[in-house]
Amino acid sequence: MAPVTAATAGEQMHALVERLYPLCRSITGDGVRATLDIVGEYVPLQVHEVPTGTQVLDWTVPQEWNIRDAYIADATGRRVVDFAASSLHVLGYSVPVAATMPLAELRGRLHTLPDHPTWVPYRTSYYKPDWGFCLAQETLDGLPDGDYEVRIDSTLTDGHLTYAEHVVPGQVPDEVLVSCHVCHPSLANDNLAGIAVAVFLARALAEKTPYYTYRFLFAPGTIGAITWLARNAERVGGPSAAPGRPGEEPGAGGQIRHGLVLACAGDRGRLTYKQSRRGDAEIDRVMRYVLTSSERPHRINEFTPYGYDERQFCSPGFDLGVGSLSRTPYAGYPEYHTSADNPDFVSPEAMADTLAVCREAFAVLDGNRRYVNLSPYGEPQLGRRGLYDALGGRSDTKEAQLAMLWVLSLSDGEHGLLDIADRSGLPFDTVAVAAGALHGAGLIKG
Amino acid sequence: MAPVTAATAGEQMHALVERLYPLCRSITGDGVRATLDIVGEYVPLQVHEVPTGTQVLDWTVPQEWNIRDAYIADATGRRVVDFAASSLHVLGYSVPVAATMPLAELRGRLHTLPDHPTWVPYRTSYYKPDWGFCLAQETLDGLPDGDYEVRIDSTLTDGHLTYAEHVVPGQVPDEVLVSCHVCHPSLANDNLAGIAVAVFLARALAEKTPYYTYRFLFAPGTIGAITWLARNAERVGGPSAAPGRPGEEPGAGGQIRHGLVLACAGDRGRLTYKQSRRGDAEIDRVMRYVLTSSERPHRINEFTPYGYDERQFCSPGFDLGVGSLSRTPYAGYPEYHTSADNPDFVSPEAMADTLAVCREAFAVLDGNRRYVNLSPYGEPQLGRRGLYDALGGRSDTKEAQLAMLWVLSLSDGEHGLLDIADRSGLPFDTVAVAAGALHGAGLIKG
Amino acid sequence: MAPVTAATAGEQMHALVERLYPLCRSITGDGVRATLDIVGEYVPLQVHEVPTGTQVLDWTVPQEWNIRDAYIADATGRRVVDFAASSLHVLGYSVPVAATMPLAELRGRLHTLPDHPTWVPYRTSYYKPDWGFCLAQETLDGLPDGDYEVRIDSTLTDGHLTYAEHVVPGQVPDEVLVSCHVCHPSLANDNLAGIAVAVFLARALAEKTPYYTYRFLFAPGTIGAITWLARNAERVGGPSAAPGRPGEEPGAGGQIRHGLVLACAGDRGRLTYKQSRRGDAEIDRVMRYVLTSSERPHRINEFTPYGYDERQFCSPGFDLGVGSLSRTPYAGYPEYHTSADNPDFVSPEAMADTLAVCREAFAVLDGNRRYVNLSPYGEPQLGRRGLYDALGGRSDTKEAQLAMLWVLSLSDGEHGLLDIADRSGLPFDTVAVAAGALHGAGLIKG
Repeated sequence: MAPVTAATAGEQMHALVERLYPLCRSITGDGVRATLDIVGEYVPLQVHEVPTGTQVLDWTVPQEWNIRDAYIADATGRRVVDFAASSLHVLGYSVPVAATMPLAELRGRLHTLPDHPTWVPYRTSYYKPDWGFCLAQETLDGLPDGDYEVRIDSTLTDGHLTYAEHVVPGQVPDEVLVSCHVCHPSLANDNLAGIAVAVFLARALAEKTPYYTYRFLFAPGTIGAITWLARNAERVGGPSAAPGRPGEEPGAGGQIRHGLVLACAGDRGRLTYKQSRRGDAEIDRVMRYVLTSSERPHRINEFTPYGYDERQFCSPGFDLGVGSLSRTPYAGYPEYHTSADNPDFVSPEAMADTLAVCREAFAVLDGNRRYVNLSPYGEPQLGRRGLYDALGGRSDTKEAQLAMLWVLSLSDGEHGLLDIADRSGLPFDTVAVAAGALHGAGLIKG
Repeated sequence: MAPVTAATAGEQMHALVERLYPLCRSITGDGVRATLDIVGEYVPLQVHEVPTGTQVLDWTVPQEWNIRDAYIADATGRRVVDFAASSLHVLGYSVPVAATMPLAELRGRLHTLPDHPTWVPYRTSYYKPDWGFCLAQETLDGLPDGDYEVRIDSTLTDGHLTYAEHVVPGQVPDEVLVSCHVCHPSLANDNLAGIAVAVFLARALAEKTPYYTYRFLFAPGTIGAITWLARNAERVGGPSAAPGRPGEEPGAGGQIRHGLVLACAGDRGRLTYKQSRRGDAEIDRVMRYVLTSSERPHRINEFTPYGYDERQFCSPGFDLGVGSLSRTPYAGYPEYHTSADNPDFVSPEAMADTLAVCREAFAVLDGNRRYVNLSPYGEPQLGRRGLYDALGGRSDTKEAQLAMLWVLSLSDGEHGLLDIADRSGLPFDTVAVAAGALHGAGLIKG
Repeated sequence: MAPVTAATAGEQMHALVERLYPLCRSITGDGVRATLDIVGEYVPLQVHEVPTGTQVLDWTVPQEWNIRDAYIADATGRRVVDFAASSLHVLGYSVPVAATMPLAELRGRLHTLPDHPTWVPYRTSYYKPDWGFCLAQETLDGLPDGDYEVRIDSTLTDGHLTYAEHVVPGQVPDEVLVSCHVCHPSLANDNLAGIAVAVFLARALAEKTPYYTYRFLFAPGTIGAITWLARNAERVGGPSAAPGRPGEEPGAGGQIRHGLVLACAGDRGRLTYKQSRRGDAEIDRVMRYVLTSSERPHRINEFTPYGYDERQFCSPGFDLGVGSLSRTPYAGYPEYHTSADNPDFVSPEAMADTLAVCREAFAVLDGNRRYVNLSPYGEPQLGRRGLYDALGGRSDTKEAQLAMLWVLSLSDGEHGLLDIADRSGLPFDTVAVAAGALHGAGLIKG
């Protein structure tokens, strides 16, 4: 495929969002599989199917849910609420039902948003058997009393939970995890935009072998992340791999060094980075640096144990260095979890911007090496090695020379290049180029 | 007795202040004993008598001072200054004197406050034999020249230093020390208000067995605290108990885990908490939390080695986690150490407020437990245990659920519930309730 | 000689600057020797001569440069640029040349400052064989086309690098290094003022045996400091003395405990202290304290690996606690490295002020002792020892008594007197006097 460029990526990502939008995803079922089939056209996927009943950490993989049709019809047979119009109309994981009942009885099964009378809410009941419909308040208000036929043609049977991985091999086996949830039905920002940014990020990273190996995870929220963690104990330094207690060196022994959860990645609001539970993980420092130095409007939020799958990755037993990148975050916009979160709500430009920040951040993460000055006693004579101006006395020292002095000064085994950029106030790229020159001259070792 | 309620406690405390006010207290003597007799009507006391000459740390218990009468009489025999009118009129610890002398000679023995000509100052000379009178400047100005009879009918003899303790037994032997000085004569805010708040605090704590054991100390300032410390070496991790050097784990081995000195507890100014020498002791964090979250006007002051008996408890050899709670602090109001610090200067409402803050603080201290998440790998499935809403998708997560997630996230053996309240921004009570629910479900252990 | 007093020192230092000004200094050569001869009239010097070709850390001592004459003459033989008028006119370390060439060809060898057309810049080429002239832009503009005779009567031969030391013996062998560069030709602020302040500081320190031994280093910039470091490995904990890796306890094993580089010490701008690489070295804390508490206008700058010889002393292998004191710092004034940095640019008052700050700082450094409270359990009874007022009850506690309480409270082996001054807000002198009194009473030990 063609390289990922800012000019085209936004439109391509938006096209992917529109293509995925109609599918009825949930935490299991054919909607997830259809979604992964489409994603697989862009990047090769390894798809995993985990049987119902499998014990995953404290949880159990639930029965698989599928749905063919659902509606509420009035006495004339007219469908006043129809799953075919939007996958949001059915309470997620509704058990099958076929009945006729008066509106008064049906009301307890109907979910609306009185404050936004034209919007349909998104509701689920994964772990308590239930059924219901979601509809616009104004639709409900227009229904005359009387009997209605309700029908949900769903199945809840032993089956599988489905998730997929895509790996961009790097120069080292240490991994960066990029995760996005694929369980939400017809909601664009949450999280088709996150899926689209992840897909195009994977393609961009593959253009040149990155330093880290990047593992992309497309999984249902919560139960999907928990399932993946349970099946990747060694990779994450988890329970069977490292029985260690909370408080140990986080992630010791695991391959996952850093991670980022992508969610709500396409609305027009400013970028929001939510820090890992650690707060000073390298990904936190990298994201703060990139967002601040790029002068984009942005927010840096503290970790909270609520939100997306960073909840699982940052749980105290794992305590991975995983942050979360969004535009307007979780529950921060009225359209959140409603039919108003449709493809118009996300913009190609916003998704392209989210993608660009990810690429900048991973470039810094990949380049944030730690060196040791091999000539730490006094300054080495840079001029002899062609790294320093011969003419002395001028007051306009070049930034490149200053960057070399900073790298020499702080490369004591403690400071990485990002530390050096932070302390010197020099751009990371300038520091990285200086480190490259010094490394080439044999003055520092990696 | 009836439970301590905010509605009645203020008036009851003020009545106690008025009752104690006329007594002539000092660092030894019958005034202290009479004071403790009255306090003993409210809470049972264990009274200690320590003989003159007893070596206590670097100090020696002094001779006991008692006084029956004292006055200055003019040539007509009229008492122009009379101890019977106020215990402040005599320099504390004055040696006996019976003499007649001209005013010019007497002047050197007279203490006044020229800036407040109607107020009588409070002065003492505990360790240098001396005598003198304190009087209003305007009284002095009204005295014609001529001879005056001066008489101080006091005794300074081998006797005892008196102090008392009251213990509210808790669930654990670890102790919280609440200390107030009982050596000041007719001064209401300093420290009858502190005594009154301590008394009603003890009664309030006893209504329900507290977690910690609370030890109340009623002792003369400085020498009393030093005497108590000398006689409670094991309790405070002191010299004979733990010979250790300064710099060791503070208070290691002692039973006193936390403490609070109560002084100037009744004036109408805002509350002031003076931190322990450590500055980050648990009592410091608790008081900061309670004062800040209650939105009362208040000040948090750094430790200084000057003030009340926190000077002794925080001396570097003990370095106990003992702070001090006042309203307007030490020397911070003009009435300080003068006859203007009378019962009108303290208010029932202010004392009730000081008492309320102490109760809130000790509730947090008592409840500030540290737990370990027994299911630290990923989130445990709260819904299965009835701790989480079954209906998903809503954006108005309940605070109680959020609190459970925070407790699970931070209960790694490092963080206590107050840490969790601080970091989450949730009220301590909400966090404590959440911890109780998780503990009940077997998800965390204490 | 007479004691150094503020009243006379400024004028005396300025006279020294004027005397040294005409000499043509460089990193080697007779100009340095003549400078040290004059300095030696003020303080006895140990002069070191290090042969060309000596390996010093990563560098090699270069050939020695000397110059007798240099000029550009026009067709009439008139010298239009003449070394005799200013040592700045020749590019430092110019190889010898004798030629006639048209102005067009000569231009590439001519350095000017177009923005300051009447000033002559200062330029060097120490390590790349080169020649050139520095002149005023307006001089250049006035030269008609045509042939010019150029002549540089210099020698570049094997010889020596020259530097000197002066030691003020102290009570302990631990040393404070005071360093100034002596390689700049006719530039007054950079660095004749630094030399003059160093000289008078040495004389002032010698008036009374200081606590530390003070070592003054007069050496050419960069190569001189590197040569000194190479030859003083044991003194600085350097490579042959302590092979240790970067990251070890800084300066462990070396005698140099603290240091200060003096540069640009005489202009009329406010004082600037540039912190050591460590940032929290004792000299950093002392200088911050002295500058802040003296209420002089000043700046505290972070360390950067660019500037004067703190670059070498703070290189990560040595990482000495060496800061740098200037008035307007490096490259911060337009006159920097130009003929406008002449004796009029520096003022006696400014140099006297720099000297005064150095004396104050070294008094604090010398007095910043750490004590241990020998009576740490409770307060010792100060009154018994005549250290405390007998009259109690007053609210105007004396600062001296407060200082004693602070010293007792914090003398736990962790805090020095400067820490105590910082935390208490009391002046360092008051704290030091209190410590002296307590030491005299046997209550603390050093």
